[in-house]
This record gives sequence, structure tokens and C-alpha cells, in this order.
Amino acid sequence: MKLIKGGVTAAKGYSAAGIYAGIKKKRKDMALVYSSVPAKGAGTFTTNIVKAAPVKWDIQLTKESDFIQAIVINSGVANACTGQEGDKNNLLMAQGVSKELGLPLEAVYTASTGVIGKQLPIDLITENIPKLVKELDGSLDGGTMAAEAIMTTDSYSKECAITFSIDGKDITIGAMAKGSGMIHPNMATLICVLTTDIAISKELLQEAVSKDVKHSFNMISVDRDTSTNDSLLVLANGMAGNTEISEKNQAYDKFCKALNIVTSSLSKMIAADGEGATKLFEVTVKGTKTWDDAVVLSKSIISSNLVKTAIFGNDANWGRILCAMGYSGADFDPDKVDLYLENADASLKLVENGMATDFSEELATNILLDKEVKAIVDIKQGSEEATAWGCDFSYDYVKINADYRS
Amino acid sequence: MKLIKGGVTAAKGYSAAGIYAGIKKKRKDMALVYSSVPAKGAGTFTTNIVKAAPVKWDIQLTKESDFIQAIVINSGVANACTGQEGDKNNLLMAQGVSKELGLPLEAVYTASTGVIGKQLPIDLITENIPKLVKELDGSLDGGTMAAEAIMTTDSYSKECAITFSIDGKDITIGAMAKGSGMIHPNMATLICVLTTDIAISKELLQEAVSKDVKHSFNMISVDRDTSTNDSLLVLANGMAGNTEISEKNQAYDKFCKALNIVTSSLSKMIAADGEGATKLFEVTVKGTKTWDDAVVLSKSIISSNLVKTAIFGNDANWGRILCAMGYSGADFDPDKVDLYLENADASLKLVENGMATDFSEELATNILLDKEVKAIVDIKQGSEEATAWGCDFSYDYVKINADYRS
Repeated sequence: MKLIKGGVTAAKGYSAAGIYAGIKKKRKDMALVYSSVPAKGAGTFTTNIVKAAPVKWDIQLTKESDFIQAIVINSGVANACTGQEGDKNNLLMAQGVSKELGLPLEAVYTASTGVIGKQLPIDLITENIPKLVKELDGSLDGGTMAAEAIMTTDSYSKECAITFSIDGKDITIGAMAKGSGMIHPNMATLICVLTTDIAISKELLQEAVSKDVKHSFNMISVDRDTSTNDSLLVLANGMAGNTEISEKNQAYDKFCKALNIVTSSLSKMIAADGEGATKLFEVTVKGTKTWDDAVVLSKSIISSNLVKTAIFGNDANWGRILCAMGYSGADFDPDKVDLYLENADASLKLVENGMATDFSEELATNILLDKEVKAIVDIKQGSEEATAWGCDFSYDYVKINADYRS
Repeated sequence: MKLIKGGVTAAKGYSAAGIYAGIKKKRKDMALVYSSVPAKGAGTFTTNIVKAAPVKWDIQLTKESDFIQAIVINSGVANACTGQEGDKNNLLMAQGVSKELGLPLEAVYTASTGVIGKQLPIDLITENIPKLVKELDGSLDGGTMAAEAIMTTDSYSKECAITFSIDGKDITIGAMAKGSGMIHPNMATLICVLTTDIAISKELLQEAVSKDVKHSFNMISVDRDTSTNDSLLVLANGMAGNTEISEKNQAYDKFCKALNIVTSSLSKMIAADGEGATKLFEVTVKGTKTWDDAVVLSKSIISSNLVKTAIFGNDANWGRILCAMGYSGADFDPDKVDLYLENADASLKLVENGMATDFSEELATNILLDKEVKAIVDIKQGSEEATAWGCDFSYDYVKINADYRS
């Protein structure tokens, strides 16, 4: 298994484009991902009761469509809380792409991201679809253009790809993702597109991503706000030529492993690029009786505003970490907790059996000054563990969100 | 019923003091509240598994003591995550007061607030207890000194008092509270002391406060972090001379009503003085089938970082309010939601049946510029409602918490 350069166009048979249609003020705002042959489609979606129009559309297609061949995405407007007009505009966006590419309407996934409650400027969108299709590009550049076009407050675009082999055939998974605010996924984060040339049944493709997000995108939080538009969409077009995976064999396991490397990498990128973030904060909680406990504890720590502001201030205020564990709902004995702070160069034990060690505040601050900081918590009650990713909380988070719409 | 000037010394028989003992750098840091006669004691406490030493002590006394006569409080150090040494120091603090006032040890509640994980400077505390006792003052000044001494990052002290009559006897409830960060109470907020001269059984006193906090302190959130030290303590010394309330009669209902006026007032003060807050944000959700749904929805809205930053930026970004409702866990139909924004002067309907009305952004901004902003959400599915209080989220929250310990 090898990480390679590239994104959604890394696997065989995929092309992509990203253009400026005028939805946002200046930056690219429409993306298209296309498979030259029909692909199996699967996805995971927000658990928010308020679901954007494209999310409702994709959930329906994921259930009913035999194949998917294109994904059209706009940024700038989320098409959420937009009523029947929103559903109609979403349909017009899918129809535009279906017509231009000569595909059945049911083969076109849609996604939108941006301001909630505004209607899509649908004329701008439909007018620009021919241009979007014309610019489809199978090189890595095409993937990058698309990754840039789905950004909102992201400070950089996020791509990842991996290759591995099954039955002597080279398989590739490529991906792009966006999202740096309203990030507390409860199925997947706000728009991730995965493309692969593997041959796999629709059922197992869905099962693989549904299981994977629990360990990747569902383990990140920027601000505890679960979006109305969270969507992870995956296409598998079979062009790698492997025997179609239709049971949970070694090939399936290998695919799941590669998938997790890609999704975990993207998850970390999203957390590190959280709105206003100055560093990635990774928290591993181990020694729990159940995996669920480790998840609840690690997510409670990375979600705490007080922990996040302390990390921003390079302040080893470990009491806030224990406090966040204490109100998480998971059961543990506070008097047994060990806590370590780590970066690439050093590891420091701050807490032993629930009380401060005689640690050096200077060394702790040095660790916290790094761009990637890890906390490891051992509750010493079992053998399960989980890792969650978040970021610090800076002035810029407030700045970005105080006047997002203007 | 009449709100009057004063705090914990407003009711008959109570005196209080607040002094500087040297735990904090400059400001007053020790408080004492004393009843000249034995009082019934009750309390509600944090649900955080990590409980500070004084919280464990008070929970035990609330169960076992026949009467309480003094409450000693320090600010600066929370005495949480401090192990057996923390328990021992807490005992020494209670013993110091018990000895100086000639009270049984079991008649002295304790409370601490400040940094988690540091040991109390117990010598400073015990040395200063005689001075604290000497300064006990039954006038309103005594209450104010005590209210000032329990502050941490609060920008002003919080007192409230009310009088009413039962059986022709004048009854008073006085109170003080502190807390502006780590506020997401799940029993009561970080230190509230209520003193009353009513005669009431211990059981009914406990029942009254336990029920009351669900409608007052448990309905506020500053940062979603539930503290290790949350404590509401109440003393009732019977000096008003009413017949002791020992059943749920009219007198009991009157007491509960007065209690709620005091605790709601303090709750609003705490929310408005949230760390870095520039305004109070009150959210009423109505039209729910159950009261629980209204609580979950209103608290989800006031807790959302994205809603709070928009309120700070005077941005009527109502989509974030619907989003926060959508991930709250409560069931509702997004296409039926009406949403109003209000201040003392104006009311503006932003959303009707889940979609934007043609509202004036200028008028919305004008409402948001006020120091007290209300949002009213009607989900039109029933007749229950609940109100929650929070605040906006400003740069100063980050500033205050990035280097709290230094």
C-alpha cells in the first residue's frame, strides 16, 4: 500500500473539473467528478434532522440507483432550509449535468455547501454546466481544480490517494474533502468524494464506508456543530479489472484498510484546517472496557472549548481534560487516570493516578508549541482505545464566524 | 412578592464576610456565610464524575447532617483532581471554621472555585479563618463582600433577594452566585448560596431546589463545559417565624415561586456575564409536545458556537439556529418552524414554515445590537415550552481562556 499524489482523478476512468460560476464573490464554486463508465455509488450522510436538498436527493439515489456516473457540487450556498424551491433547484442542477453528459438523471449525485437558508442562484449554475463538462480533465490537475472549487472557509484544498493490489491488479482510491467549520460529523463530514477503480458490490461498498466513517470522519470535531450538508460519496467503477468483491474476504479487508488510510488522512487535514486553527490536536484514550467509551471520552476532550483555548494558549491546563472526561457520560475512575502530552520529539507524563506529576511546565509548553500535539489518556480499566482529531480554538474562529454571511 | 436590594445577608439571622487571604494575586478570595441559629441545609451538585473535594464533602453533609450553620468558600483554587491531600485540606478548612465559630464540624459546608489540579494553599486559608470570622457582618455590605470574594473570571458580583409573606410573616430569600466560564450546569452552577429565614422541612427544601434548578441554572450555558465544582447550597433557618412547611401546600408553592424568581435572575446574570460575553441571549422554544423537547432544543441553540459567534457579529444567520435544532436529538418537522428575533423594542419574524421571510436585514441587525436579545422558536406541534439563557461568543472568551493559569 502506497500513498500517491493526486485526488479524485487518481483512479482509472475518472475526470474532474472546477470552475468559477459566480456563486461566490471571487473563488471557484462549481465542481464535477465524472466516471467514464457506470460506477457503484454509496454514501454516508448527516444525521441532522434538517437535511439540505442535495442530501435528501443523494440518500434516495443511494437506495434506488443501479449506478452513479457523475457528482456535481457547488460551494457558496448550502441549499438547506430552502423548502420545495430548494428541491426543485437541486433537481435542475442534476438535470443540467445529466443532459450535458447524456446520463440518466438517477446517475447524478449532487452536493452543496455554504450559507444555509439562501436559494441557489440556479440560473448561474445551469448556464455554467456546459463549461464545467467541457473542462473535465483526467489528469491530476482536474482533481485539484475540483478540490479547490468545493472549498468554503478551508484555507487549503484537501486531496489524498492510495494504491495497492488485489489479484495482481493495481487498485487506486482517490479522494477530496472540504470542511473547516460546522464540523462535528455524525455520519461523515461536509463533503468528501472518494473515487476508486476497484470492482466491488454496491452492498459491500456501502458497508465498507459506513463502517469506516466511525473511525475516521466521525472522530473529528472543530466546533461541535453537526452540519445540515454532511455527505461522503463514493464511486467504484471496476476499471481496475479485479474480480468483483462480493464477500468479506481478504480483498475486502485490504480495501477497507486502504480506505481507512485515505479517510484518516483527510480527517486529520480537516481537523488541522479547522476554522481559525493553529494546530492539530490528536487525542487517544486507551485502557477502556469498550470501544464506545474510548470514543465518547476522546471526542469529549477534543470538543471542549476550554481544552481547545488552553491548547491555543500553549497552556498545559490538564485539569480541563479531566473535567471534559468527567462530563462525557462515560464511566471511569478519575483517581486512576494517567495523562501524557506528546509531539514528534518528546513525551511528558502530566498526570498519574488522577493527580499532577512534578512535570516541567517549560517542557509542556515546548510540546504545545508544535503544529501537531497529541494527548494520550490511559484510564487503566481495559484494553480498548480510540483516537479523535480536533484543533485549537483561536481568535480567528470567532472572526471567521462573526460575519460569515457578509 | 418583591425583589429587594441585598444578597445572602438579606434574610433574618445571616451574616457574611469576604476577605483577601493571598490565594489569588490581588482580589478577595475567601468568603463565609453564617446563620446565627441552626438551619436546614440542602443542595444540588455537579453531575461531573470528577468531583472536587468540597463537593464530595457537601454531598455527604446534605445526606447526613441535621443542621448547617456556616458555609466557607475560597476562590483561586478549585481543590479538584487533588486526591487524598485535597480531601484532607478540605477537612482542615471546615475544621478551622467549626473551631472558630464553635460549631460541630458537620455544620460547615465548604466550596472552592478556580484552577483544577492545584492543591489549596491550606496554611494561608487556616491562618485567615479567624479574620474571616471577625469580619462577619449582618448588613447588606457583608453579603456584598462575600459575593465579591467568590468571583473568578466574573466581571461583576451577583446578588439577588426577594421578600414575600406566608401566614402574615415576612419571608426573605437572599442569594449570591458566581461563575462565568465552565458553565453548562447539570445540577446547578458553580457556586450559588441561597439563604432564607423560612421555616421548612429539610426534605421539602431539598425537593424545592432540586426541582427549581431544572428551570433555572440547568437552563444556562456559556461554553458547554460542565464544571467539577458546581454547587448550589441553601440554608433555611426558620427565623421568619412561619409555621414550618412540611407538606406541599400553598405556602410551599409560594416559596417555590419566589425561589424561581431569585434563581432565574441569577441565571440570567451568569449567562450575561459569560466569559467574554457582550450580550445576553435568551431562547424560548415553544409548541413542543413535551417539556423535555423544548429544553433540548433551546439548550442546543444557546450552546452552538456558530450561533453564538453570529450573535456576537450581529448577523441574523438563522440557518445556524435551525441547524443546531436539527442535531439536538429532539424530533420536529423543519418545514413547520417559525422563528422570531426580539429585543425590548421590536419583534421580527425571520422564518416561517422553515424558510426565510422577506425580513429586513437592517432591522435584524438593529435588534441584535441590543444588550439583551431574544429568539423565539415555534415548532407548532404541541403546547409545551422552555427558555434557556446563554451569551454570545467573542474574542475575549478565547483571550480569557488561552492563558487562564498564568
